[in-house]
Parts: sequence; C-alpha cells; structure tokens
Amino acid sequence: MNPYHKDGIRGQGAAKISDATVRRLSKYYRTLQSAMASNKITISSEEIAHLNGVTAAQVRKDLSFFGAFGRRGLGYNVADLHRNISHILGLHRTWNVCIVGAGNIGRALAHFRQFQEQGFHIKLVMDSDPTKWGQSIDGLTIQRFDDCKELMHLEKIKIAIIAVPASAAQRVVDKLVEAGIKAILNFAPVSIFVPSGVTVRNENMAIEIEALSYALTSKSRRPT
Amino acid sequence: MNPYHKDGIRGQGAAKISDATVRRLSKYYRTLQSAMASNKITISSEEIAHLNGVTAAQVRKDLSFFGAFGRRGLGYNVADLHRNISHILGLHRTWNVCIVGAGNIGRALAHFRQFQEQGFHIKLVMDSDPTKWGQSIDGLTIQRFDDCKELMHLEKIKIAIIAVPASAAQRVVDKLVEAGIKAILNFAPVSIFVPSGVTVRNENMAIEIEALSYALTSKSRRPT
Repeated sequence: MNPYHKDGIRGQGAAKISDATVRRLSKYYRTLQSAMASNKITISSEEIAHLNGVTAAQVRKDLSFFGAFGRRGLGYNVADLHRNISHILGLHRTWNVCIVGAGNIGRALAHFRQFQEQGFHIKLVMDSDPTKWGQSIDGLTIQRFDDCKELMHLEKIKIAIIAVPASAAQRVVDKLVEAGIKAILNFAPVSIFVPSGVTVRNENMAIEIEALSYALTSKSRRPT
Repeated sequence: MNPYHKDGIRGQGAAKISDATVRRLSKYYRTLQSAMASNKITISSEEIAHLNGVTAAQVRKDLSFFGAFGRRGLGYNVADLHRNISHILGLHRTWNVCIVGAGNIGRALAHFRQFQEQGFHIKLVMDSDPTKWGQSIDGLTIQRFDDCKELMHLEKIKIAIIAVPASAAQRVVDKLVEAGIKAILNFAPVSIFVPSGVTVRNENMAIEIEALSYALTSKSRRPT
C-alpha cells in the first residue's frame, strides 16, 4: 500500500467541494472585484453567470454550498458576496509564499504582481545551484535550498511554489513536506506525490496549449 | 445581443468532448510518454488511473469517446494508445506559436522548453513597447505588435499566447482575431471575449494558488 496519494484538492479539509467549484468561486470573486471597482451595489446570478461563461443555476448552486447569500429577485449585495467569498477562499488574509527554483519560470513568478495583489506574498526564493545564491530577484536574495526548513520557518511560509525541472521535482517536494509545508503549487511538468494532508495544485502550461491544439485539430476534421 | 461569447473549449469544433476530458487526455499522454521511455509494452486502465489520480472507469470512459483502443484483460498497447492520443490532441504535428507581450511572463514562456518538446514552436515574439523592439529573446527578435497581421502570416502562426497586462488584453485579442487567429492561450488575468469559432484557454496562475489558500483555510476551520 502506498501511503501517498495524488492530491488535487481532495485533502481532508476539502472533501465536499469540488476543484471545479473552487475554481469558479475564484472567478466569481474577480467578477465581484470588478463590480466593486465600478461601484455596483447588487449583482444577479445571471450577470455573474454571463461574465463567467456558466449558467445562472450553476452560480446559485456553487454559492449555495456556503449558505444562501442572495435574495430572490434582488440579487446579491456585491460587497457582502465579495467578503463572503474572500473568507471562503482564505483571501481575507495574507499568505507567505516561497519559490523553489530561480530559473525562467521562477523568476517570472517572483515578479508576478497579481500574487501580491491577492495577498500571496513572495518572501523567499531558493535554488540548489550555488552560482545563483546571493543573486537578487525583485529585492529578494536567492537562498540555499538545503536550508529550506529553517528559512521557511523564519519567513512563516505556508505555500511553496515549485519551479524546478521535472527530474528534481519529487526530491524537492519530499524535502518541503519533511520541512512541514502543507500546500504546494507545482509548475514542474510532472506528477508529484505527497502524503495525505498536503494539498498540491498542478500548473501545467503545456496542458492548456494542448487543448488549443485539440480544438484546432477537431475543427479541421469536420466537413465544412 | 452580444455576438461574442466566452469560450472555454466550447468552440464549434469541440462540442461533444468536455474541457475536463481533454485535460485528462493530455495527462494520460504524459503517462504514456513515460511508459514508452521505460520500454513498457502494455498498460492497464488501472495503471493509467493510479498515476493520474482518477478511477479506471474514468480512464476507460475518456478513451471510449474516440473508439475502443484496449482489449479486456490485456490492457492497452502503449505505443498504439500514445499514437492515437497524439492524433486526437493534434500532437502528431507541429504548431507555430507567437507570444504577445515581452514582459516577465512572456520572456519565461519564450524559454519554456516543454512547449518546443511537445511540438509548439515559438516563432514570433511581439510587443507594443518601442523600447523592446529589436531586443533578442532566445534567438528571436522582438517585433512590433502593430505588424502582427503580416508577421503572423509570414510565420504561419496558428496559436497566439497573450502575456500582456489585463488592461491591454482585449485590445490585443481583437487585433489578433482580426488578423485571423483561431486559438489563444491567455495569461492576462482578465476574461477576454472572442467571436465564435475562436478558442480561448485561460491560464490564470492566481486561481490555482487561491485553491491552495482555500484548502489551508478549510483545514484550519475544522476541529482537530
């Protein structure tokens, strides 16, 4: 028996809500941010649905998991719903984040402003390559990955982003898990295994572009 | 009536197969690549399932959309299934790709070796910022976005990657669509609208990290 399992968001703490629902909540949250920015007071499930390419019934169902926030015929109060979703997703607080791997992707992520804006603060960048130690990225000095346990403790890191080659990913993950990390965003193009209780999300950029290749291919197969 | 719609993979050419199925096929394809690399001849739906965190029934169902490739009790021939999926996903050929936006993300993507390995060849990088024109990224010279129509035609570009700020995304997309592009991978953190017949995939890195924030938050809410 393998004590490890592949973990989407099926961790113990998130048994009932599907990945897809959480992903849609993130999108609704953005819709509400835009609505607030344009001083909108209320918003209907139809409006949220239209802007996110889903049905109004889907929007109502997704929100119903967490209690009924809207009133029939009146729609949702934008500020209330925004606050509710931010609490559900844990976006009402900040999270300290580390990046492992200071290659092209790691460096781009360290500069990625949207993480900061949503409360994800990059506090630490680590690499195994001695030639990178001491270099600076966006004000952060690249640190030795061997010291990850102490560094992550010092910086109160709750989320680790893995931007290392596929061949190094599992070794890096094992070390991070040993150091106590519970949430990993994986940019390495490979499946990684974690013990239960640790949540992994995979960001595989090649998978999205393959969906485009599929769409173009299936179009060209059709008789026109 | 808005003639534009938000498009996952719901384009005309891909009506029947869900986004989720296509995404899983990409993952199975990787599993088969690894299996081939280790000289495996046959593979069972159970093995594919285990390595991808889904059920064997799901694997069989996903593959059944495209015809039955396996034989009961014998599993799938690795090379055959690999070839079949590569044809389904359009990975048996190469695609010429352009990147719009030569900021941190655009530059990282231009260097992203996995695109090349899977047959997605970055042939063109464009930007609207005159100070970037003429600079070189990985052997490519950054070109004027204003010339996108001619440049994309010249380089036979089939897929465009958008790595521009949110505020510029829709304008860039409109111009690309006008120039004839049919497939867009969007890294801008904003919803973009395209006419039907154009497929968009959104790569929103902040959404995946929010799923981790959700998982950590829902864990900490539970009594322990």
